[in-house]
Amino acid sequence: MRPVDLIRKKRDGAEHTREEIAALVNGYTAGSIPDYQMSAWLMAVLLRGMSRTEIAALTELMLNSGATMDLSSIPGKKVDKHSTGGVGDKTSFILAAIVAAAGLTVPMISGRGLGHTGGTLDKLESIPGFNVNLSTEQFMHVLKTCGCGLIGQTAEIAPADKKLYALRDVTGTVESPALICASIMSKKLAEGIDALVLDVKTGSGAFMKKKEDAIHLAELMVETGQQMGKRVAALITDMDQPLGRTVGNSLEILECIEIMRGDSHPLSHDLRTLSVELSAWMFFLTDSVTSVDSGRNRAEEMLTSGKALAKFKEILRLQGGGDISVVDKPSRLPHSSHTTEFKSTRDGFITAVQCEYVGTASLTLGGGRSKKEDSIDHAVGLVLHKKVGDTVKTGDSICTVHYNAVTPGWEDRLAQALEILNDSYEVGEKPPTSRPPLIHQVIGKALSAHAD
Amino acid sequence: MRPVDLIRKKRDGAEHTREEIAALVNGYTAGSIPDYQMSAWLMAVLLRGMSRTEIAALTELMLNSGATMDLSSIPGKKVDKHSTGGVGDKTSFILAAIVAAAGLTVPMISGRGLGHTGGTLDKLESIPGFNVNLSTEQFMHVLKTCGCGLIGQTAEIAPADKKLYALRDVTGTVESPALICASIMSKKLAEGIDALVLDVKTGSGAFMKKKEDAIHLAELMVETGQQMGKRVAALITDMDQPLGRTVGNSLEILECIEIMRGDSHPLSHDLRTLSVELSAWMFFLTDSVTSVDSGRNRAEEMLTSGKALAKFKEILRLQGGGDISVVDKPSRLPHSSHTTEFKSTRDGFITAVQCEYVGTASLTLGGGRSKKEDSIDHAVGLVLHKKVGDTVKTGDSICTVHYNAVTPGWEDRLAQALEILNDSYEVGEKPPTSRPPLIHQVIGKALSAHAD
Repeated sequence: MRPVDLIRKKRDGAEHTREEIAALVNGYTAGSIPDYQMSAWLMAVLLRGMSRTEIAALTELMLNSGATMDLSSIPGKKVDKHSTGGVGDKTSFILAAIVAAAGLTVPMISGRGLGHTGGTLDKLESIPGFNVNLSTEQFMHVLKTCGCGLIGQTAEIAPADKKLYALRDVTGTVESPALICASIMSKKLAEGIDALVLDVKTGSGAFMKKKEDAIHLAELMVETGQQMGKRVAALITDMDQPLGRTVGNSLEILECIEIMRGDSHPLSHDLRTLSVELSAWMFFLTDSVTSVDSGRNRAEEMLTSGKALAKFKEILRLQGGGDISVVDKPSRLPHSSHTTEFKSTRDGFITAVQCEYVGTASLTLGGGRSKKEDSIDHAVGLVLHKKVGDTVKTGDSICTVHYNAVTPGWEDRLAQALEILNDSYEVGEKPPTSRPPLIHQVIGKALSAHAD
Repeated sequence: MRPVDLIRKKRDGAEHTREEIAALVNGYTAGSIPDYQMSAWLMAVLLRGMSRTEIAALTELMLNSGATMDLSSIPGKKVDKHSTGGVGDKTSFILAAIVAAAGLTVPMISGRGLGHTGGTLDKLESIPGFNVNLSTEQFMHVLKTCGCGLIGQTAEIAPADKKLYALRDVTGTVESPALICASIMSKKLAEGIDALVLDVKTGSGAFMKKKEDAIHLAELMVETGQQMGKRVAALITDMDQPLGRTVGNSLEILECIEIMRGDSHPLSHDLRTLSVELSAWMFFLTDSVTSVDSGRNRAEEMLTSGKALAKFKEILRLQGGGDISVVDKPSRLPHSSHTTEFKSTRDGFITAVQCEYVGTASLTLGGGRSKKEDSIDHAVGLVLHKKVGDTVKTGDSICTVHYNAVTPGWEDRLAQALEILNDSYEVGEKPPTSRPPLIHQVIGKALSAHAD
């Protein structure tokens, strides 16, 4: 079984056997198959596709390329959420606190931002002292103590994915549903969880711009997870505008604290709703409640009682975020030296947002990475004052731009960010005929309900 | 212009600009673009295709990645032939002698065999003392002296192709008409020729099994060459059975000598006819004659007068093949220690030959390479006694197998070769309804005739 023959087989659109996928994954992880053969195979996979059977085999082999977490010593159900990424997407912090406050265990292994989307780890690192690099022992201790831990991918978890992802990033082979599914599911299933809720974003700020592509990916992931004995459901959710009212690392953490404190801004409503919804599904899939409706009530209870906030403080304390955390002293979060307003130049309605551009504007200010090596300015970002459908008058601020005037070239970057924002927002005379629904649909509902 | 963006562009089926192709070819040749990015791009090209404009740009950039030969100090027209490769394909030796004998210059840069097809250089090296590794100065001297030289690709000629071909070979990206066209044409046009005749093989022993694929490749190559100011025509020729009556390095050289000597076997008729036909086109495209018909007469004259044979002796002498060459003493060619007959087990007609298998049988005996590093046994091979349509009786020899009983495992290899031959030949009760035509059609005829 020469690698070149396996490449040719996929190139010609044939289906791989499990043994063939094993030869590729194991050979690549061990270093006997070079990058240049793997990248040709990845391109063939992207253009020819993979069957469900192939995807399940690829996922399982990538999962088993490394260690899986053994959480059997922790009583109760373990559950996690994964999002395909978007702009202002920060539900993780809220739902992790909600679900752990209700007694479940949330072993959340997350990634960093790349391109226009933010990353959970980057946002967490805007909290002074917060440490996302725990050893497996430290992570287990945190999970046992407070029911939730938030860390980055370790070297032991799915090394095949780590190596493959780095290669895909530089060879134009990221956007394959089969490869995305195997990458996400191999990492998430390595967490030793019982259930998983997927937040698959669709719209102008998502990787999957088209709803049908998002649904296809969601179906692949749900089926793959269920085949491996997990309870999985996917929510197809809107990313045609940023979620909540902030974009940028510390600004997003602050918005989450506001929601957990109970004094959030009306424009944070969609973020609060989606966090509750995802929590409800996490409760439901772990049989903590008998319906998603009851799950919603449970989540609301955790928020309004202050239990979620208390849990969040506990997580921060255990992962180095300080005894007097940013929850009690939000001024401890980094904030930018300057702000300026991005104003409307006409009267009308916000009819559409090029959501990816909004993410790029924040990245341009220093809030994200163009290249892996880039460092991040945690303080910069955007606070939005208008959402799609809102009225706007000439001179009204559409959003406040938080920037730092320190590193060389900041004037150019600010000017560029404002220009990008100008291209992002469409103001029309008439209101848009409809506002995008926050949740389009749920995939795997029926199967999940009867999975046990 | 990041390489990953160029990969994504081709992946999504878009057309590259000349600048983009230049960035890829030059970056890869210089080493700034790594193998793993180039192989992903090559796979995207194979699966998405390239436009005629892209192919012309790729060919020209690969051509200009290295030196081109300057033959302006040699008077008269320069012309070459290229074959896409087949089994028993040995026209080069005959037509080079014919065309050079008539006063034209044939600067032939050839390749080695890989897989089931033989290579011109390997066949030449079965001639004791023959040196295919001449320096540019030596090559120029040979060309000036006798009008024909036969060498391998030098490091200076199309280095981009050299590097790309090695990568394509191990990444399943050989079979792209666009890449094949650019590879062949960049090397051939670097020879500094005025005209080129292409022998594009089709059938069970060719790389292009289907006639429409052969025609497509021929059209690409003819158009690319003509765009670069050369007179080019392509003959689509049969490879549904081996050409001539021998397969194997020294056996093939001997068959060519027989034809030039004028005492060839009737089963060599197709080889002689095709060599004359290709020579005729070489005469026609260089305006040495006013019609292909006259070209045929000129070629016949060179053969029957003995001038081609004399020219062949001159080439051998100049490239180290000795003063008393194998032409005068064919016994100087390596010959195998043993022969055995592959016999028919029934009465009937040869209805079909799996021509690729026949090539593989010779390779299995040691006459070809599975891997680049393999060494070649020049003496082994097959002498055919039957062609498609011929009658055969039980016990008749279909071919004589020439083998050596020296290297370990020879018994296994011989048994395997005989088994492959058994799978190669179909004997039926009735003769085949038609015999394949030797020449299917000519591409570029009209354009070539009016090119000047």
